[in-house]
Amino acid sequence: MAHNSFGKNISITTFGESHGQAVGVVIDGLKPNFPLDLEFVQSEMDRRRPGGNSLGTPRKESDTIKVLSGIYQGKITGTPLTMIIENTNQISADYSNIEDVFRPGHADYTYFKKYGIRDPRGGGRSSGRETSARVAAGAVSKLYLKEAGIKIEAAITQIGNIKLDKDEIKWEERTSNELYCPNKKKAESMAALINDLRDRGDSVGGIIECRITGLPVGLGDPVFDKIEAVLAHAIMSIGATKGFEIGEGFNAATMHGSQNNDQRNSEGFLTNHCGGTLGGISTGQDLVFRVAFKPTPSISLPQRTVNKENQDTTVVIEGRHDPCICPRAVVVVEAMSAIVILDLYSQLSLEAN
Amino acid sequence: MAHNSFGKNISITTFGESHGQAVGVVIDGLKPNFPLDLEFVQSEMDRRRPGGNSLGTPRKESDTIKVLSGIYQGKITGTPLTMIIENTNQISADYSNIEDVFRPGHADYTYFKKYGIRDPRGGGRSSGRETSARVAAGAVSKLYLKEAGIKIEAAITQIGNIKLDKDEIKWEERTSNELYCPNKKKAESMAALINDLRDRGDSVGGIIECRITGLPVGLGDPVFDKIEAVLAHAIMSIGATKGFEIGEGFNAATMHGSQNNDQRNSEGFLTNHCGGTLGGISTGQDLVFRVAFKPTPSISLPQRTVNKENQDTTVVIEGRHDPCICPRAVVVVEAMSAIVILDLYSQLSLEAN
Amino acid sequence: MAHNSFGKNISITTFGESHGQAVGVVIDGLKPNFPLDLEFVQSEMDRRRPGGNSLGTPRKESDTIKVLSGIYQGKITGTPLTMIIENTNQISADYSNIEDVFRPGHADYTYFKKYGIRDPRGGGRSSGRETSARVAAGAVSKLYLKEAGIKIEAAITQIGNIKLDKDEIKWEERTSNELYCPNKKKAESMAALINDLRDRGDSVGGIIECRITGLPVGLGDPVFDKIEAVLAHAIMSIGATKGFEIGEGFNAATMHGSQNNDQRNSEGFLTNHCGGTLGGISTGQDLVFRVAFKPTPSISLPQRTVNKENQDTTVVIEGRHDPCICPRAVVVVEAMSAIVILDLYSQLSLEAN
Amino acid sequence: MAHNSFGKNISITTFGESHGQAVGVVIDGLKPNFPLDLEFVQSEMDRRRPGGNSLGTPRKESDTIKVLSGIYQGKITGTPLTMIIENTNQISADYSNIEDVFRPGHADYTYFKKYGIRDPRGGGRSSGRETSARVAAGAVSKLYLKEAGIKIEAAITQIGNIKLDKDEIKWEERTSNELYCPNKKKAESMAALINDLRDRGDSVGGIIECRITGLPVGLGDPVFDKIEAVLAHAIMSIGATKGFEIGEGFNAATMHGSQNNDQRNSEGFLTNHCGGTLGGISTGQDLVFRVAFKPTPSISLPQRTVNKENQDTTVVIEGRHDPCICPRAVVVVEAMSAIVILDLYSQLSLEAN
Repeated sequence: MAHNSFGKNISITTFGESHGQAVGVVIDGLKPNFPLDLEFVQSEMDRRRPGGNSLGTPRKESDTIKVLSGIYQGKITGTPLTMIIENTNQISADYSNIEDVFRPGHADYTYFKKYGIRDPRGGGRSSGRETSARVAAGAVSKLYLKEAGIKIEAAITQIGNIKLDKDEIKWEERTSNELYCPNKKKAESMAALINDLRDRGDSVGGIIECRITGLPVGLGDPVFDKIEAVLAHAIMSIGATKGFEIGEGFNAATMHGSQNNDQRNSEGFLTNHCGGTLGGISTGQDLVFRVAFKPTPSISLPQRTVNKENQDTTVVIEGRHDPCICPRAVVVVEAMSAIVILDLYSQLSLEAN
Repeated sequence: MAHNSFGKNISITTFGESHGQAVGVVIDGLKPNFPLDLEFVQSEMDRRRPGGNSLGTPRKESDTIKVLSGIYQGKITGTPLTMIIENTNQISADYSNIEDVFRPGHADYTYFKKYGIRDPRGGGRSSGRETSARVAAGAVSKLYLKEAGIKIEAAITQIGNIKLDKDEIKWEERTSNELYCPNKKKAESMAALINDLRDRGDSVGGIIECRITGLPVGLGDPVFDKIEAVLAHAIMSIGATKGFEIGEGFNAATMHGSQNNDQRNSEGFLTNHCGGTLGGISTGQDLVFRVAFKPTPSISLPQRTVNKENQDTTVVIEGRHDPCICPRAVVVVEAMSAIVILDLYSQLSLEAN
Repeated sequence: MAHNSFGKNISITTFGESHGQAVGVVIDGLKPNFPLDLEFVQSEMDRRRPGGNSLGTPRKESDTIKVLSGIYQGKITGTPLTMIIENTNQISADYSNIEDVFRPGHADYTYFKKYGIRDPRGGGRSSGRETSARVAAGAVSKLYLKEAGIKIEAAITQIGNIKLDKDEIKWEERTSNELYCPNKKKAESMAALINDLRDRGDSVGGIIECRITGLPVGLGDPVFDKIEAVLAHAIMSIGATKGFEIGEGFNAATMHGSQNNDQRNSEGFLTNHCGGTLGGISTGQDLVFRVAFKPTPSISLPQRTVNKENQDTTVVIEGRHDPCICPRAVVVVEAMSAIVILDLYSQLSLEAN
Repeated sequence: MAHNSFGKNISITTFGESHGQAVGVVIDGLKPNFPLDLEFVQSEMDRRRPGGNSLGTPRKESDTIKVLSGIYQGKITGTPLTMIIENTNQISADYSNIEDVFRPGHADYTYFKKYGIRDPRGGGRSSGRETSARVAAGAVSKLYLKEAGIKIEAAITQIGNIKLDKDEIKWEERTSNELYCPNKKKAESMAALINDLRDRGDSVGGIIECRITGLPVGLGDPVFDKIEAVLAHAIMSIGATKGFEIGEGFNAATMHGSQNNDQRNSEGFLTNHCGGTLGGISTGQDLVFRVAFKPTPSISLPQRTVNKENQDTTVVIEGRHDPCICPRAVVVVEAMSAIVILDLYSQLSLEAN
């Protein structure tokens, strides 16, 4: 296995799996002499941890951050910053009935075929637990970005068929509910739907929208590392994602140039159909993109599958799973965005005209 | 500027801009002693070149491939394979009226702000011409993949509001028309729409679907280099793309786990909602993804913009532009896919269990 | 700070500094299902640890390896293998008299000028302690190489002016003494010299020779990643190294082509002046190279220097330092060599003709 | 084959082999709006080209630089700068007698074993001709460094047993002779020795010393990318190099700490034993290193070898070869140094405290 690192000037390397001692991250390339607000990092961890919201798994893990290196007297030294989350609540018994079968919608089958390993306890590196390391790195990135005036906020805009129209999005209501849904009322319907599916042993997908504000003009490169290309890479590397679109996204396919082009005058752009990027480089407008998440594959309804000997069988996945991935994924989307934006931002100094 | 290379084990580096002597590509990491079918490479170039189809720009360029290195007695030696396309038909006069203004929907503004350069003749590295180098590299990649039994085919499934439903897609009709539209009849409507918009000085967007068949299980890594993440990066690095989705894509947001999970029996998967990837690793099923393209930004209707001194002005973009990018982009989508798949395929040998 | 990773297909990322919680390493890219002999890894750590030999510092540290990730039921899973060594014996008092001055021959001055940090407790990332993470990674690499029949052994062949001539090197005597000196008798003189310099508060340099046996033909690339170039990079990245030479090395400057060329017949090469590499690619012969180490900069004789305010001062470095770096560096040279060779070896599968 | 690129923030990719159309280089990452002095680049090419000095091969090649991309109105645009040298004087007949045998001291054997290719016409990518692309990239790098006040000069200080002692080095005499030998008188002896060996059909090795002046404090990273490590990598990637040392180099092995440490006062360092680097980071002093070159392997004396069927044979290498590589290698050493230093220099902006 390879490619457990991401980023160019500032890179993160994550490690750890559910069954091991710890998951963690090494961040390389940070500027020195920057104060690390560990409380903020922990608060971001709490947004993602199992048991952190009433709509997700009741399984509780504390996800406490511990710093191994890179700090001296409260400040980031610029040396590799290593943070780990020790594994504490691993109830292996949960997985006893599935250790020989490939769960539908999971990485079990492909992982086994590729590596010859069938680790039933949470999926090895394919486990959602790996994203806790990304959230830690994202939190640190956000701190640096905050100083540069850049803010990253994601929100749920669709769960199943409950969808916010553009004029229903009220960003100020985003933190009024556990779903980070920017419409308090629709949030209630979404919560009801999620709870209903939990009761039925099923699950549901959704869409997360992310907005990045305060960006300068100039992030991204014109060819392979367009800002939307690097973001798409980062976002689609989060498990369960099935789509990425920026600005008008798939809707742009239906538009005419005269509708989609963002005209401008001396005071700025008149519209933002492009979502904050032209030619792969940030325009200085808000960067706006959306991510599609599939329904959680772990459901307790019976499903057809095979075991390691390729014999037909039926599996019922017990245990305490999230009926919808989105509530806990909001902070992961923000984290991967922060990691990308900080990397591109740091690169500006290299490229100054 | 940086990051003009893409790929890990097999990498491509593209160079060249519209105003220069040539555009080209260096491919590094190819296996030696493989015959190079240059006629095939040229035929792929012809699919992309300006003037290559009746629905695009009438501007004709020959886009003839010339090999500078990496070949000996008709075979790829494994040393860097360099191919160039010399620039021949550069009518600078076309651009005289726009040299001081920023064209809406183009990279002009961001490129100028970032690099201090406003090169009116075709957009520097942001020019669509850069993709000719990708097509050359993609053609070589396809030759290697063909030997491995892997085939990559893209098709237009939507132009504006003319859209193929799933049951209207007849893959065998894909090569019956210039649009690579897998429905002969709808292709005619699409062509009419494109011609209509050309007459009105406007343009239109569309969607390209790509199918990759013959893949083994095991391409892609479980964390940052999931097959869909690397593909999304590659595809979103093509100019004018606004979205990427795989399998059910954004539709997965509306589904339940019981609907979206691909169950299986001893003979294989029963459905392919996932689009050929689980946990970021290819399942051996067809890989199916879709790409949204925005309408061509170059339109001849008057648009509001500013000049380099940030004074309000109106621009009318003359010249011979494609009213829809999609017909020429089909082969570019295939090319970037081929480059990604060959890179991941070559990596299998590194990872064997 | 950046570039705390090394390697291409198999990469190591080290982290940690003397004052922190731990130093450690993440190894990415290992093949799965390989048994990890942790006792061997620990035995390699013991060869490097402070207090591990009678000629070095009497400061004792246990340097116990702890695995955080990448192991399941005793086997390497192929996921990132993370090993840490927790810091236990950090007596900060040792450094109180030097916290404001730049020690001659140390990184203090350059590190402070570059990062604005003067961490007196052991030099931050410039500390020799960082090499413990390399030794752990090197030990794991050696285990994989052993299975491939490749062996790496280093030895001290010079301390100060006490030097082994070619005919004095008896490789079988290499493990008869703490210096890994392949001549038992000269080892005694070297030990006496080291102890004499310790008594005088001074230090001395030396040369380490490394031999790699069992290599196949074909490691290394013809251009930038010649095997000797990658080895030179790896070896010169060890602190206190001042030179690297392979085969005849600097002596080749004095030779004629007719003397230096290695002729061959059907049974193989007749000589090995080249040191096992031609055109940057391993010949299948023994790879033989030498590394020059400078004398330990920490000496207790008074030295002229300046403080952080650039005022003239004199410094006397107390504490328990190694009068010669070489004895503890032998295993570090082996470790970096093992990391390089495993990386190049794994790449063979990518390059097969 | 892979790894035909070098560098991190600014990278070069070289391509081409003796038998092909051209050799060339793509430089990625240059800052825009910098004037390209093509005459200077050509003058550097002339220092390396065959026939450029009376002591080398009488084979003449013009090595004319042609720019394919990256320039607009005489200025570097920051887009990939591609320069090629077309192959003109390829007399294949020269190689007819050696096409089936492995020349001693050449890459023929290892290259064939690795890639299954025996290209007699100049050694494929192992040909010295590949270095012309490096010289072009080095020349461009020198132009950028010159503006930063950094100068790179190399000189021959030893040919065979003719060696300059420290007090014989008179840097101002370096350009008085074709050997770039900083001692006019010794240069004559060296020239006589080279001519003598040519007459005898033999060859000889030598040492090149390189001095870099005007460096700021702070180039290089403390761990894997120490300035001396990256330089060693770059330099040892030049064909025929056998050793690299910096500052006191191998002599440091004989020294005591009290002799080797560079003490300082408020006006600066009192000595420069370290060669301009402490802890892998430039001190602001002159960077001084030496490179050992082996004797040219192409000699016309009969040598024992085997053919592709591993049958014993004798080879006499005819043709017009350099009896000593060093005179043409001086500019190559400078070029690789310039490429490294520019890369590290550009990185300073990323790392600012």
